Amino acid sequence: MKDFKPYYAVIFTSTQKENIEGYSEMAKQMDELVKQQYGFLGMDSVREDVGITVSYWENLDAIKNWKQQSEHLVAQQKGRTDWYNWYNVRICKVEREYEFNS
Amino acid sequence: MKDFKPYYAVIFTSTQKENIEGYSEMAKQMDELVKQQYGFLGMDSVREDVGITVSYWENLDAIKNWKQQSEHLVAQQKGRTDWYNWYNVRICKVEREYEFNS
Repeated sequence: MKDFKPYYAVIFTSTQKENIEGYSEMAKQMDELVKQQYGFLGMDSVREDVGITVSYWENLDAIKNWKQQSEHLVAQQKGRTDWYNWYNVRICKVEREYEFNS
Repeated sequence: MKDFKPYYAVIFTSTQKENIEGYSEMAKQMDELVKQQYGFLGMDSVREDVGITVSYWENLDAIKNWKQQSEHLVAQQKGRTDWYNWYNVRICKVEREYEFNS
């Protein structure tokens, strides 16, 4: 762990409405767009009743930049009006990490 | 955000083997046990091909304590030998949080 360089995670937890028309197209667009963002390191996204999406970033400035990206702002607004009943966003500093491979 | 008190998140990302006999019973036991741990704040868990479980804790000591809990050590060992192809554990400090309710 000596050389571990901290980075950031955004934990996005959500529940969706029953009718989420237009959501999957927008999610696909955002998936493409986020990869082009400065400081983006990767993302994992899983949904059952609750959805958890965790994106990883080099620093807080990169997270802020993505939050304010113009097309992402439109997606966020649509999310609040059309798709999400509830969501929670947590900005986290990743301090340690370990991995297992079988 | 003035009064926000930082806490910790453990992001556990994993892929499982095809045959995971005994896993669901153990997962149920661990779900019960983790709730009794000192400093435990909550947990969200979702699985498709990849699983993401995020648990929330008051401090690093509580995370360390849970990692070393005796029944949990048995579960971790079984996880490595029997159930997981791969997993990653990230210890994170939650620095900011916001929520949306429709």
